[in-house]
Amino acid sequence: MDKKISVWRRPLYLCPKRVVQLAVKCVGICGSDLHYFEEGRLNKFVVKEPLILGHEVSGTVKAVGEGVTNLIVGDRVAVEPGVPCRRCEFCMEGKYNLCPNRHFCGAPPVGGAMRPVICHPAEFCYKLPDHVTFEEGMLMEPLAVAVHACARAEIKPGSSLLITGAGPIGIMVLIAAKAMGASNICVTDLVQSRVDFAKGMGASHTVLVKADDDIEVTAAKVSHILGCGHVQAAVDTSGAESAVQLAILVTKPGRIVATVGLGPANIAIPLNQVTFKQIDLRGCRTYCNNQHEVLNLVASGQVDIKPLVSHRFPLDQALEAFDVARGRQGMKCVLQCSEPELNGTVLQNGH
Amino acid sequence: MDKKISVWRRPLYLCPKRVVQLAVKCVGICGSDLHYFEEGRLNKFVVKEPLILGHEVSGTVKAVGEGVTNLIVGDRVAVEPGVPCRRCEFCMEGKYNLCPNRHFCGAPPVGGAMRPVICHPAEFCYKLPDHVTFEEGMLMEPLAVAVHACARAEIKPGSSLLITGAGPIGIMVLIAAKAMGASNICVTDLVQSRVDFAKGMGASHTVLVKADDDIEVTAAKVSHILGCGHVQAAVDTSGAESAVQLAILVTKPGRIVATVGLGPANIAIPLNQVTFKQIDLRGCRTYCNNQHEVLNLVASGQVDIKPLVSHRFPLDQALEAFDVARGRQGMKCVLQCSEPELNGTVLQNGH
Amino acid sequence: MDKKISVWRRPLYLCPKRVVQLAVKCVGICGSDLHYFEEGRLNKFVVKEPLILGHEVSGTVKAVGEGVTNLIVGDRVAVEPGVPCRRCEFCMEGKYNLCPNRHFCGAPPVGGAMRPVICHPAEFCYKLPDHVTFEEGMLMEPLAVAVHACARAEIKPGSSLLITGAGPIGIMVLIAAKAMGASNICVTDLVQSRVDFAKGMGASHTVLVKADDDIEVTAAKVSHILGCGHVQAAVDTSGAESAVQLAILVTKPGRIVATVGLGPANIAIPLNQVTFKQIDLRGCRTYCNNQHEVLNLVASGQVDIKPLVSHRFPLDQALEAFDVARGRQGMKCVLQCSEPELNGTVLQNGH
Amino acid sequence: MDKKISVWRRPLYLCPKRVVQLAVKCVGICGSDLHYFEEGRLNKFVVKEPLILGHEVSGTVKAVGEGVTNLIVGDRVAVEPGVPCRRCEFCMEGKYNLCPNRHFCGAPPVGGAMRPVICHPAEFCYKLPDHVTFEEGMLMEPLAVAVHACARAEIKPGSSLLITGAGPIGIMVLIAAKAMGASNICVTDLVQSRVDFAKGMGASHTVLVKADDDIEVTAAKVSHILGCGHVQAAVDTSGAESAVQLAILVTKPGRIVATVGLGPANIAIPLNQVTFKQIDLRGCRTYCNNQHEVLNLVASGQVDIKPLVSHRFPLDQALEAFDVARGRQGMKCVLQCSEPELNGTVLQNGH
Repeated sequence: MDKKISVWRRPLYLCPKRVVQLAVKCVGICGSDLHYFEEGRLNKFVVKEPLILGHEVSGTVKAVGEGVTNLIVGDRVAVEPGVPCRRCEFCMEGKYNLCPNRHFCGAPPVGGAMRPVICHPAEFCYKLPDHVTFEEGMLMEPLAVAVHACARAEIKPGSSLLITGAGPIGIMVLIAAKAMGASNICVTDLVQSRVDFAKGMGASHTVLVKADDDIEVTAAKVSHILGCGHVQAAVDTSGAESAVQLAILVTKPGRIVATVGLGPANIAIPLNQVTFKQIDLRGCRTYCNNQHEVLNLVASGQVDIKPLVSHRFPLDQALEAFDVARGRQGMKCVLQCSEPELNGTVLQNGH
Repeated sequence: MDKKISVWRRPLYLCPKRVVQLAVKCVGICGSDLHYFEEGRLNKFVVKEPLILGHEVSGTVKAVGEGVTNLIVGDRVAVEPGVPCRRCEFCMEGKYNLCPNRHFCGAPPVGGAMRPVICHPAEFCYKLPDHVTFEEGMLMEPLAVAVHACARAEIKPGSSLLITGAGPIGIMVLIAAKAMGASNICVTDLVQSRVDFAKGMGASHTVLVKADDDIEVTAAKVSHILGCGHVQAAVDTSGAESAVQLAILVTKPGRIVATVGLGPANIAIPLNQVTFKQIDLRGCRTYCNNQHEVLNLVASGQVDIKPLVSHRFPLDQALEAFDVARGRQGMKCVLQCSEPELNGTVLQNGH
Repeated sequence: MDKKISVWRRPLYLCPKRVVQLAVKCVGICGSDLHYFEEGRLNKFVVKEPLILGHEVSGTVKAVGEGVTNLIVGDRVAVEPGVPCRRCEFCMEGKYNLCPNRHFCGAPPVGGAMRPVICHPAEFCYKLPDHVTFEEGMLMEPLAVAVHACARAEIKPGSSLLITGAGPIGIMVLIAAKAMGASNICVTDLVQSRVDFAKGMGASHTVLVKADDDIEVTAAKVSHILGCGHVQAAVDTSGAESAVQLAILVTKPGRIVATVGLGPANIAIPLNQVTFKQIDLRGCRTYCNNQHEVLNLVASGQVDIKPLVSHRFPLDQALEAFDVARGRQGMKCVLQCSEPELNGTVLQNGH
Repeated sequence: MDKKISVWRRPLYLCPKRVVQLAVKCVGICGSDLHYFEEGRLNKFVVKEPLILGHEVSGTVKAVGEGVTNLIVGDRVAVEPGVPCRRCEFCMEGKYNLCPNRHFCGAPPVGGAMRPVICHPAEFCYKLPDHVTFEEGMLMEPLAVAVHACARAEIKPGSSLLITGAGPIGIMVLIAAKAMGASNICVTDLVQSRVDFAKGMGASHTVLVKADDDIEVTAAKVSHILGCGHVQAAVDTSGAESAVQLAILVTKPGRIVATVGLGPANIAIPLNQVTFKQIDLRGCRTYCNNQHEVLNLVASGQVDIKPLVSHRFPLDQALEAFDVARGRQGMKCVLQCSEPELNGTVLQNGH
């Protein structure tokens, strides 16, 4: 695959019905972007044609199409990148994250936001209050992933929690869980700098694990550190076999292990422990109907997500940014776009 | 009814199996204590013989019975006052707050904690870490009520909430809801000092209501102030007809109005609005299985409940304390017990 | 109000996109039709212009608009009358029954199905297998109401149930509850023929009540007959104050009273019993996402709803049919349409 | 291990408090009995001393201990074999099936019911109505497993279901699911006679699978046969890797795969499909708080479980019975005890 990132240079047209045109301000690089960039695929989504990446986005409204009622030109917005069909059974049931027809900004074949201007359905753009920054707006997307996972894990105030994986999603889960009242949280990762970052962001405890650790030993260590035997919930953000096994061992009978990370095609798990302990292993796909609440969390000051941004690059240094992101140096790499001269086409990536 | 509060003077005996003897340090005065004191009853519970009140309690372990494994002499503890039978269908199903055989410390016919020493089953006493004060320990009981109500109301992070009634339980609901991530909370009350207190404790908005306000006008006002049309949840802590009606009107279709306050035998509600808006009106009775989590919330610093104590009295000025509590001056009135000389009987109030 | 029912005589036009044209075969008369017919309103829906009633409908596809993929001409279908906007927050959350923009066939201002031909969005028409009759297809609408209410009431296999009101919806709740495994069901009504019908349809027990009965006496009677103290769930289909009070008294602490019937603006309920017993009073609005399952129930033979039709009239005897329905003689009155000559306009009542 | 089954010959003593003495009438042989008999263990439970097996039991009350209020001598009863501690956090939360202190009749080290007389806590014995047979009473235990699994799988009326494994538990899941309204059920097994039996018991469809079938091909076959793309729920009763993989593939995004069968220590599963499809993989352990409802199901005639008994043996032909059970000939093998002469000791196996 040719890893050049095209620079967008096409003439500008009108904004379609219910769509807004956005001058992109911030785009984050996500783990899934790295998968597409390096492997050309993520799960069943395969890159078959040149693709503009980018789905963690904030920007400014430059034009509004007919029928847009929630936004006006000049509004600063965060983007919810997935746009469901509204008609399938999943949409009808309110699980639009499972819509098989969903257009997802930056997932093949839909072009993403690593370009100066995008169009997006207005109903999936959320107006940011003045005191919320573009970087915070961009970070609402991974925070929404975390809030969704914590809801699936049924985090309760005062509960204990294991988070496996301290990448950006793991840290967002930490932040979301604390906002929901979790009070005894252990975070594990393979990388020292990441567990340190988790500690700095408020993890009660951290454990540096190694790929070949004995799971039962690690489980005993986690239980000892937390001082509570089993945890009341676990969220895996790594997709790694050993992490999921650890989560199953450490979680209290009758409780939930939520899985967010995508790993290899098949992994070995102690399913008879799942059965015997009556655990729920709950998969989590992106997010659904939580964007307003996520914005409220950020805007009210109940969560501080700003520290997640570790590196900033102008859009034309995107390749350097991907290098840094790939190296797992720091947390979130952000591409910053300066105000574009709107002389190019807008490719609509929604409906 | 004779409103003298007896002073406890009886010889001391041994501590029964699985029971601890506590030197009482703090006892709060609750709304239900006022009902018993003034009316001699609360709902179906009628005071038929002289009764020692008091169920919001913290103290120090002075003796442990056989089979006590979670506590030792000298431990500082918070008391969960209700002790269920463990055998009935409600206990079997984990809803021990509904156990018809429950012994409740300070509810007829079980003597309460407004005395220097009580006995209580060790399993319903929770060891306080050194940095948690006796007053905080005592306040865990009303906080547990609030956490239970917020769980029933399915408060979600970033959600909006109406709390009707800003007495101690209303304030505790405010504190618990914020710990669960609620970010846009409106509190109503009839008393200016109470809405002011709510504001100081972090309510986003407050509305001073009057008994004869037009409900629809108040509802419109609340919606306007919150800026969100309907609230995503409501918790009534007043039991008042107008408050419940307001909550039903203001709550978003498909959501929950949790009721904690106990009011008159029958109240008029717009049930066809409940049906048409598909609202859940969910009664809440005390709490159940949440005491460890409540302690975690307090001990981790995620909630600060200390400001609720507005008045302190020594135990022998209990009548003055009840006068203050009855006048709704301030928030929580606390009786403080000095270290007793343990030369009296202990009446076991549990099993 | 002029209670003439207009006969439809207008020229025929093309079928819009995603819409089908149906030759109406059966239309049931529902309690809400009677409200509109007699009082000109139901809850907040007011009849301001001449309105064709009818929302319990089955028919045959006569024409299909562009983009219809689930049906072809000649298909026999049941109609889901409410068509939501798919865009509002309620639609997004999968609660499209709460959509404020919903077009509901036969509710003002949307014309209903008491005419030879209607148009309706194809996605809200369900193809009937050959062995399912038009009358069964028409009855799927009130059965869907009942399945929704039983889901809200969390009926479990082997559980006991109180149903207040033995009109068509009460009987449908009885049928649905039995299909979900409820095994000890008591039905109450004011009319002897209705409790008899319930008995014939499989109610374990029935109680004939009177408007001025003492609620506590009736509650004791119901408990005695069921032999189980409290019921594990209750569904009110009457909207009557005394019925809701009875349901609250008879329902086991911690369980659910689902309300389907719409009664007067305010009714008196013992809310402190709701609170103290920790009952959920759950409103139920029509149905949502259950039509395929309802069809499966009927088609698989798990339920037999055919006996509900007690009276049949040709469309041009609709006034007589309304007279019978109003008199509460029998159960469901059905209007039957013969194959129309398609020489009239089709008024689209959906999108 | 010495596979002799001892015959009980010890002197009789008094019945302890809250315990009843039962003359055993029927004892079923369960898959877990085969594990103990052949391998000396099941999961973490290891047979270290001679053990009397048997936990699917019905019998007649011969004596009642002090404090027994629900039974009298002569009552015919079904036994719930697991007796929880009532004190641990799991018991407190109503999940007594997860109680780590549970005494389980016939699981090491607690002696089971393959003997003429047992003692058991009265509260875990359920009085059978006259028309319910001892065999039905004995079969209530595996039916309770199935009702619990179906509840965990959230079976809804009219829904489709995949059941992997057509042994006695698989058949019970089929029966329970139909009682809850499931209407399109596909059952798979490796053995022709078992899928035939499932068909006879009302499975809509059956698929005979082979150990080395391609899972994706089988999944496509199941989808085609059911005519519904994905199933709305799946219950695995086999514990086999291929069965669980099939269930994950065939289940609709957003729905539940419940696991009841216990298989090898680790199995490979496509966890990223669980995550991506947002599936819940829910372990199920025995049952909890559903015995009264299970009895209601049987007594009301809503389910007919009698056909499950395929072989009957007198108690002293237990070895032959185990041989038949091991060969998977037929379904449930039952040991029948004739009225014992009560001249032996009773070993209490409860509390």
